Amino acid sequence: MADPATSAPLTRASVQAAHDLVRPFVHHTPTLTNATLTSLASTARRPEDLVGTEWEGRAQPPASPAVRLWFKCENLQRIGAFKVRGAFHAIEKLKQEPGWLAGGGKEKGVVTHSSGNHAQALALAARTNGIPAYIVMPDISPPAKIAATRGYGAKVIFSGSTSVEREAAAAKVIEETGARLVPPYDHPDIVLGQGTLGLELQEDAARMMTEAESDPPSGKCSFAAPVTKQERGERKPEPSSSGAKTKRRNQLDIILAPCGGGGMLSGVALSCEGTGVRVFGCEPSFEGADDAKRGFESGTRVETVKTLTVADGLRTPLGRVPWSVIYERRLVEGFYSVTEAEIRDALRLVLERFKMVIEPSAAVPLAVALYNEDFRALVEREYGAEGADVGIVFSGGNLNLEILGSLFGGGESAKN
Amino acid sequence: MADPATSAPLTRASVQAAHDLVRPFVHHTPTLTNATLTSLASTARRPEDLVGTEWEGRAQPPASPAVRLWFKCENLQRIGAFKVRGAFHAIEKLKQEPGWLAGGGKEKGVVTHSSGNHAQALALAARTNGIPAYIVMPDISPPAKIAATRGYGAKVIFSGSTSVEREAAAAKVIEETGARLVPPYDHPDIVLGQGTLGLELQEDAARMMTEAESDPPSGKCSFAAPVTKQERGERKPEPSSSGAKTKRRNQLDIILAPCGGGGMLSGVALSCEGTGVRVFGCEPSFEGADDAKRGFESGTRVETVKTLTVADGLRTPLGRVPWSVIYERRLVEGFYSVTEAEIRDALRLVLERFKMVIEPSAAVPLAVALYNEDFRALVEREYGAEGADVGIVFSGGNLNLEILGSLFGGGESAKN
Repeated sequence: MADPATSAPLTRASVQAAHDLVRPFVHHTPTLTNATLTSLASTARRPEDLVGTEWEGRAQPPASPAVRLWFKCENLQRIGAFKVRGAFHAIEKLKQEPGWLAGGGKEKGVVTHSSGNHAQALALAARTNGIPAYIVMPDISPPAKIAATRGYGAKVIFSGSTSVEREAAAAKVIEETGARLVPPYDHPDIVLGQGTLGLELQEDAARMMTEAESDPPSGKCSFAAPVTKQERGERKPEPSSSGAKTKRRNQLDIILAPCGGGGMLSGVALSCEGTGVRVFGCEPSFEGADDAKRGFESGTRVETVKTLTVADGLRTPLGRVPWSVIYERRLVEGFYSVTEAEIRDALRLVLERFKMVIEPSAAVPLAVALYNEDFRALVEREYGAEGADVGIVFSGGNLNLEILGSLFGGGESAKN
Repeated sequence: MADPATSAPLTRASVQAAHDLVRPFVHHTPTLTNATLTSLASTARRPEDLVGTEWEGRAQPPASPAVRLWFKCENLQRIGAFKVRGAFHAIEKLKQEPGWLAGGGKEKGVVTHSSGNHAQALALAARTNGIPAYIVMPDISPPAKIAATRGYGAKVIFSGSTSVEREAAAAKVIEETGARLVPPYDHPDIVLGQGTLGLELQEDAARMMTEAESDPPSGKCSFAAPVTKQERGERKPEPSSSGAKTKRRNQLDIILAPCGGGGMLSGVALSCEGTGVRVFGCEPSFEGADDAKRGFESGTRVETVKTLTVADGLRTPLGRVPWSVIYERRLVEGFYSVTEAEIRDALRLVLERFKMVIEPSAAVPLAVALYNEDFRALVEREYGAEGADVGIVFSGGNLNLEILGSLFGGGESAKN
């Protein structure tokens, strides 16, 4: 990987430059709306829904925000997740690095340790460039993941499953082959690459809002028609005068993105710098998976996490480079977390009502919009009757069909 | 329901008129492409893939067609299936029927017997018009289906599960309320309404082909970019001179649609009349579910079917009105059937690779394109190197998550 010291500065302009580099290789995925989910997010929960949550029995009634949701569908991205953006960007930057090509870099290849989407993303980006890719995977990885990574032409190297074992295996590959390490999130080039989805989401939502205005809703429905501000406004109470934001015309107000290692979240935050779009991170709360939230609120980055949350893409601790953007520069405004049951319920709604396949990690921001009373109260308080346009990052769609049975088996379905 | 004798003639122009009537109420669903599925459909199967099929051991090698697939996503339609098109059309036509409104028709309401998508479609169309809807459902219907139908404001009446019992229950409702029967498929107004999806598919695919031509592929990828004729053509053998069709420029060549009662298939066939687009019906073969195919080939409509195919929307026999369009007027060119395993494999590909949720019935046409050697040999023979543009109707997306476990549980997954 290119030396971080020589990377472009972490700015919105650098995200735009990254976009120019990766555009030939990645899909400009669609931004979609869904009337059912927007309506659910804009409906106050019943007091009994809050029983057993941290908001049970509080004095004020459940929040009644007006929310319009805009879904960035990276589940429809190549390899089924946003990770190709960072991987292609990292390789393009390597190719620009003085001496890398001349030094035989293309023949020496690239290496990473990952059993997830980054493994397939790097394998694809390397193959596209005719570069060998070495992927260190735990020897207990699911056979389907191993086969998929090999399917992109990568050489899979097995290791033990601790981070020490994986790093040792990667170091051995580097020693033997001269391959360059491309880490999954903790590098400026990865951060800038992933941030390109934030640019597309902002642009597409703004365009769709403008188009909807020039073709106002009558009886006419069209696919994915957004709920208009007028429709929403009629049903909502007046904003309280204190703390009310001035609604920005035809722009997103907020983006909610999942946070694992934080590469994508910090990239999206950079893509919003100076635009007025507010960015929040979303995490599972299970077994301490809300490490970024805890670190952000305490001022000290949490460096280890050990959780088996169903949102398996979000089990990693926040990286140093993401932390510098998210916390030190305060480009992320805060974090919200959700329970395993809330993630599962949000996932079910997406499968059943949106007819989209997403992976559990990708359901976390929607779960925040639907179920996190702190977030919902913020929107009600600050955006009132006019409501807020909220971008939701569907980060990936690599859902193992076999685990659906364990998620949705038995009598749980009556709930929805 | 409007008296069939007073319905519009079964012509393409009547489908266009139906489209004008239903357009305010239904989504214009997107037509999408998917590079992975198009590539799979354009790859010859291995001889060992045909072991155990009717094509095992035949002399010629597996067919090697060039196919570009265009998916009409009615899984993203309101209530999750195309059925709203027919239901809204039927009610609009009732409103136009002399004397129906004046005779208190709106107060008397509408009735049908269905436990499937038609029940919810009629309930929604009736509620939209402020008309009571009575839905006769078998008393063994899944609670979720009952709740969903009631959720649209319909009154659910339970009956036994034989057709005699259901019809008796519906007759009793009509006697007591004066409600008008709106059958699920066997009526001209339903046929014309469902056919509107065929118009949209033809128009959208033609537009997308033209756009792709004016923006030729470079290294640039975009979401759902169709494989170009050039790309395909380079990989394919020359067409045999005998039987080769002249490729029509920027139009679909073929539409594959599922066939249960045949309302949608016959409507789509009408939407293609005189355009040169060839229409084929697709059925499961399990337990005689290929009734339309058998009837079409023998010249006698099969009137009863008893099958538990996983494609539960396709368990009904072909209706009389559809038969008149499909067989007597020969607007459908033929039928293809697929096995339960082929339906399941196609469904898995759509969930895993297309990230779309569809129901098993909707996977049947894709299964034909991927696995039916008779269809694939026809495309190779008649379209050769140039290949065929094939529209695939994704008829609905109401997939019960609980049945996914039974479909994809165990060790079957290794196959894909």
